[in-house]
Amino acid sequence: MKHARMRYQERATYCKNPLAKNLFLLLDDKKTNLALSADVTTADALLKLAEETGPDICVFKTHIDIIEDFHPDLTHELQAIAKKHRFYLFEDRKFADIGNTVKHQYEGGIYRIADWADIINAHSLPGPGIIAGLAEAGLKKQRGLLMLAEMSSENNLFNADYTERTLRMAEAHPEFVIGYISQQKLSNEPQWLYMTPGIQLTAGTDALGQQYNTPESAILEKGTDIIIVGRGIVKATDPKTTAQKYRAAGWEAYEKALSECS
Amino acid sequence: MKHARMRYQERATYCKNPLAKNLFLLLDDKKTNLALSADVTTADALLKLAEETGPDICVFKTHIDIIEDFHPDLTHELQAIAKKHRFYLFEDRKFADIGNTVKHQYEGGIYRIADWADIINAHSLPGPGIIAGLAEAGLKKQRGLLMLAEMSSENNLFNADYTERTLRMAEAHPEFVIGYISQQKLSNEPQWLYMTPGIQLTAGTDALGQQYNTPESAILEKGTDIIIVGRGIVKATDPKTTAQKYRAAGWEAYEKALSECS
Repeated sequence: MKHARMRYQERATYCKNPLAKNLFLLLDDKKTNLALSADVTTADALLKLAEETGPDICVFKTHIDIIEDFHPDLTHELQAIAKKHRFYLFEDRKFADIGNTVKHQYEGGIYRIADWADIINAHSLPGPGIIAGLAEAGLKKQRGLLMLAEMSSENNLFNADYTERTLRMAEAHPEFVIGYISQQKLSNEPQWLYMTPGIQLTAGTDALGQQYNTPESAILEKGTDIIIVGRGIVKATDPKTTAQKYRAAGWEAYEKALSECS
Repeated sequence: MKHARMRYQERATYCKNPLAKNLFLLLDDKKTNLALSADVTTADALLKLAEETGPDICVFKTHIDIIEDFHPDLTHELQAIAKKHRFYLFEDRKFADIGNTVKHQYEGGIYRIADWADIINAHSLPGPGIIAGLAEAGLKKQRGLLMLAEMSSENNLFNADYTERTLRMAEAHPEFVIGYISQQKLSNEPQWLYMTPGIQLTAGTDALGQQYNTPESAILEKGTDIIIVGRGIVKATDPKTTAQKYRAAGWEAYEKALSECS
């Protein structure tokens, strides 16, 4: 069912979380809905990717726990690059434990994720305590949480009921939850942000069950907001130029969605 | 429905994973089915707990990512204590991503979990690729994987169908999966090990939705194998003496189960 597609900047006015509002505004202002999934394993490679793709992305998604030579300065350097090129840092931690544990994992340890990651994500599987635990650490730092409502891996155990219960859990915390990791738009309430992983310019599957969709399919057909691209850019010969291609594809799909539905 | 309860050492003969076999043998040999959940945040506190409770436990469960002053030597020191007191190291990472990512998280980064943790656990939610990804890194090091089939937190999203699908996924990998994190015994096949978290000597709930059961309820009534005790021991004035109490309670429940059902 088609209905009017709202501009990102208009949706910003509905957000209860300040970070979500600023992110929506950034999308239209910078004209990019591309998030880079920076799945590299050294500090140098991570910083280089952030510097190279920074001008073309809205979000830089990390797995800080796969960096072999992590050191606390690394996150400060990332923050500096994020500020310079105006993008947000998203640690793709996929928290998945009870509230008391995720709170420690989020703010403590050597990674101190809450100190530098603007955005984190979590599975709803352990129940609402996981949001409460993360919010205890993240709300005071004006962070935002994305709930995993769907995944792109083969034969995953998500289903309609699970997704529905995830939405109910998220809707109880609009001050901290900013949206969803999902394959499609899940609600008509305009404040929720949808980020879609598993994007490549050509659809397909990897050897460990990851399934790929295209930018147009995610943004235009499925109605999501931000495309997350990993290997399509990171493994390219020229990540910078490739990021520009994905940025153009994602933005074109958004503009098309606006013109088709208005 | 009651049926003959097999001794741990007999169940060892059914295991396809060498670690699972050795763990079952250790339980009867050392006469303990107590796992300590070492939820402390400094290296010193972690090592002290391992040293103090080591003689009374079969498994030492860590959240390595909440240790503020982690350094690579820490895991070597843990391994030395584990060898001295004969217990296994279990990193409670709750992997919950696609296969390609969890493989990196398991063997890489600064924690290099696959190098020192005998046991890890994972959510089945992302689909079978998660087991394949972890097995690629863990099988060659003779590690073992526990699948999360149930959780003890309030209003969690596990249900009978999810648990059933988790079992099917695990049963396809008996060379790497050694059993489950669950609240009850889930299959009549004797090779699967059940570890039950959320155990205290008195039942109850914490402020972030964790629900507690007793050793007798888990081992005798629900038919699981290993009780995981965290705050009940870690927050006690005297963790060593308290661990001995839990060890006695867990073992008594096991002996009672054997005598009632044989």
